[in-house]
Amino acid sequence: MRDVAVIGVGLTKFGELWDKSFRQLIAEAGSKAILDAKIEGKDIDALYVGSMSSGRFVDQEHIGALVAEVSGFSQLHIPATRVEGACASGSLAIREGYLSIASGINDVVVVGGIEKMNDVGGSEATDILAAASDQEWEAFFGATFPGIYAMIATRHMHEYGTTKQQLAQVAVKNHANGVNNPYAQYQSAISLESVMKATMVAYPLGLMDCSPVSDGAASVVLCAADKAKKFTDKPVKIIGSGQASDTLALHGRRDICTLDATVHAAKMAYNQANVTPKDIDFAEVHDCFTIAEICAIEDLGFIEKGKGGTAIDNKITTMDGSLPVNTSGGLKAKGHPVGATGVAQIVELTLQLRNEAGKRQVKDARIGLAHNVGGSGATCVVHIMEGM
Amino acid sequence: MRDVAVIGVGLTKFGELWDKSFRQLIAEAGSKAILDAKIEGKDIDALYVGSMSSGRFVDQEHIGALVAEVSGFSQLHIPATRVEGACASGSLAIREGYLSIASGINDVVVVGGIEKMNDVGGSEATDILAAASDQEWEAFFGATFPGIYAMIATRHMHEYGTTKQQLAQVAVKNHANGVNNPYAQYQSAISLESVMKATMVAYPLGLMDCSPVSDGAASVVLCAADKAKKFTDKPVKIIGSGQASDTLALHGRRDICTLDATVHAAKMAYNQANVTPKDIDFAEVHDCFTIAEICAIEDLGFIEKGKGGTAIDNKITTMDGSLPVNTSGGLKAKGHPVGATGVAQIVELTLQLRNEAGKRQVKDARIGLAHNVGGSGATCVVHIMEGM
Repeated sequence: MRDVAVIGVGLTKFGELWDKSFRQLIAEAGSKAILDAKIEGKDIDALYVGSMSSGRFVDQEHIGALVAEVSGFSQLHIPATRVEGACASGSLAIREGYLSIASGINDVVVVGGIEKMNDVGGSEATDILAAASDQEWEAFFGATFPGIYAMIATRHMHEYGTTKQQLAQVAVKNHANGVNNPYAQYQSAISLESVMKATMVAYPLGLMDCSPVSDGAASVVLCAADKAKKFTDKPVKIIGSGQASDTLALHGRRDICTLDATVHAAKMAYNQANVTPKDIDFAEVHDCFTIAEICAIEDLGFIEKGKGGTAIDNKITTMDGSLPVNTSGGLKAKGHPVGATGVAQIVELTLQLRNEAGKRQVKDARIGLAHNVGGSGATCVVHIMEGM
Repeated sequence: MRDVAVIGVGLTKFGELWDKSFRQLIAEAGSKAILDAKIEGKDIDALYVGSMSSGRFVDQEHIGALVAEVSGFSQLHIPATRVEGACASGSLAIREGYLSIASGINDVVVVGGIEKMNDVGGSEATDILAAASDQEWEAFFGATFPGIYAMIATRHMHEYGTTKQQLAQVAVKNHANGVNNPYAQYQSAISLESVMKATMVAYPLGLMDCSPVSDGAASVVLCAADKAKKFTDKPVKIIGSGQASDTLALHGRRDICTLDATVHAAKMAYNQANVTPKDIDFAEVHDCFTIAEICAIEDLGFIEKGKGGTAIDNKITTMDGSLPVNTSGGLKAKGHPVGATGVAQIVELTLQLRNEAGKRQVKDARIGLAHNVGGSGATCVVHIMEGM
């Protein structure tokens, strides 16, 4: 198996992008990544695209081929494949691209992630997202994701004494980080009080505990590590890739406060990278709701199970803490165009490890981790990256 | 890159399966394949699932994890990934599973393909399928696939003198083959006259030139070739895998009578397998409409461009011909649950190469080819297989 590096990255701004079409978004992110990587069409062996529900959000399936076309690669007949695993679709696309290079079949692969969610109304978006949960046991009976994560949160509060204020502090931290990310949907700080007093969605999760409905696209160019220096002076290596599954419905899990798929995916990635959680300098984790970030830092092995809330109190995960988490603003402030999220996490890791993250740069960042979740944890993907 | 073999196959009957749910179908195909391969859960490293539009047909995305769950593998947290490329979704899942073994990451991978299309009405199914075409340039203006393939057919007739009767003979042949396939949706012979007189859908394609709306699932177990004999006496090796893309909309193509993506995918597969079209003993090709089979046998290099209709007249592709095509009945008679189709083609190749195809067995079958198309040719995938 060959080593694989990221040699180029591109992002659109995330947000409510009424003035840009699905095609424009993916073309923008892709062309930025290709320019950044200084590659040409003839260098590209394959495309992978992550999107959760383009069929329902914009009436378009078959978007692998569409992305090849809008990127100008149809005449080259480059293989183009869409990958889906709900909100983890982007990192699954990264992983498939990674495997195709590791296998020796491809040398250079462009990976895209996209979701354009605002073209449908808010309640329809919630319905579409619910198709990432178990249709027969959850969605059919009216469960949507705020309610599902609220059950995780109330159980976490019951088991471990986690407080609503600790949850709120996750949102405050991620908005503080988002201020320094020009691509973030919300580049505004928020107060603890405003999160605590926000409209209740599903107790204990208020409106500001929830990531938004977003449009956006992200792209990275992957390359066999031994050929990366041909294109760029600053390749960033993927040193670990892990993926795991769990039951689609929450009720099937061993423990609803633990995402076992995260635990297993992380173990796989740590083993491959030959590192431990202590070696990670910063992380992008899947904070679709504030409780999800608390579970993530526990399940990834950064913090003992049940102590995630206390870690937030102790500011371990702020920019100045010992393990900055969601320096990009996370899903909460950067935005969460679901298929783009996993790819955007790899963009953030790459920028940090190239020392190009501007005002949100983590000092001496050497090893970063990205953690992407589908649904309430039925799919989890973890990547670990290191500068070359 | 390691060699990869198929060690187990499973199919549900294809058809209008009102009495079986999406979950039941995929569980049935998967468990048959797993039993056939004589593997256990602990042997399985990953799952890949092909489905075009489960989000719209059955309101369920995130079906990689669902398939892991209904197969009983959630407790093992096996990585599970859905792949989509319209009607080529199944063969894309095969290819991703193949790459993950070739790379050395996985040893044993279960691949599934599924579509349950009849739960929505016929006109809604046509709308959903149209999302595999170009939404902005084709579907939005009312184009659906019968019309798109009708344009290919009329141009083929104009350029090469292909006749409606030649098209009809494709359907007659595939139904004759389907009679001998107990899993086929239509196990009934049809007459040339009945095809010629069938209700017109889009000239020159009548109702019986079109593949049906189908429910069904298929599954195969892939294994590193050097470990295959541990599980089965009859592994069948994948000796070539090719994939290519083209413009989503038909109007963007160099020549609408040629699927350039087929030409490129075939070239990739032939080169890898180190064979030529002359070495192929039989083939499963993508006959979503009768004209598609004529284009396929030309674009795969079996027949000179423009001579596909004449080849049908000369019975080259019948069971007794020099190159039997669609021995399973093809999409036309076996049925076309779109996400399952590419996987079902690999099932047919495996049965033929294991000499287990019963009344439709091709004598002395040594090398077979499978050809799967997404949309009107924006994605094409070709696999070549040989007994070990």
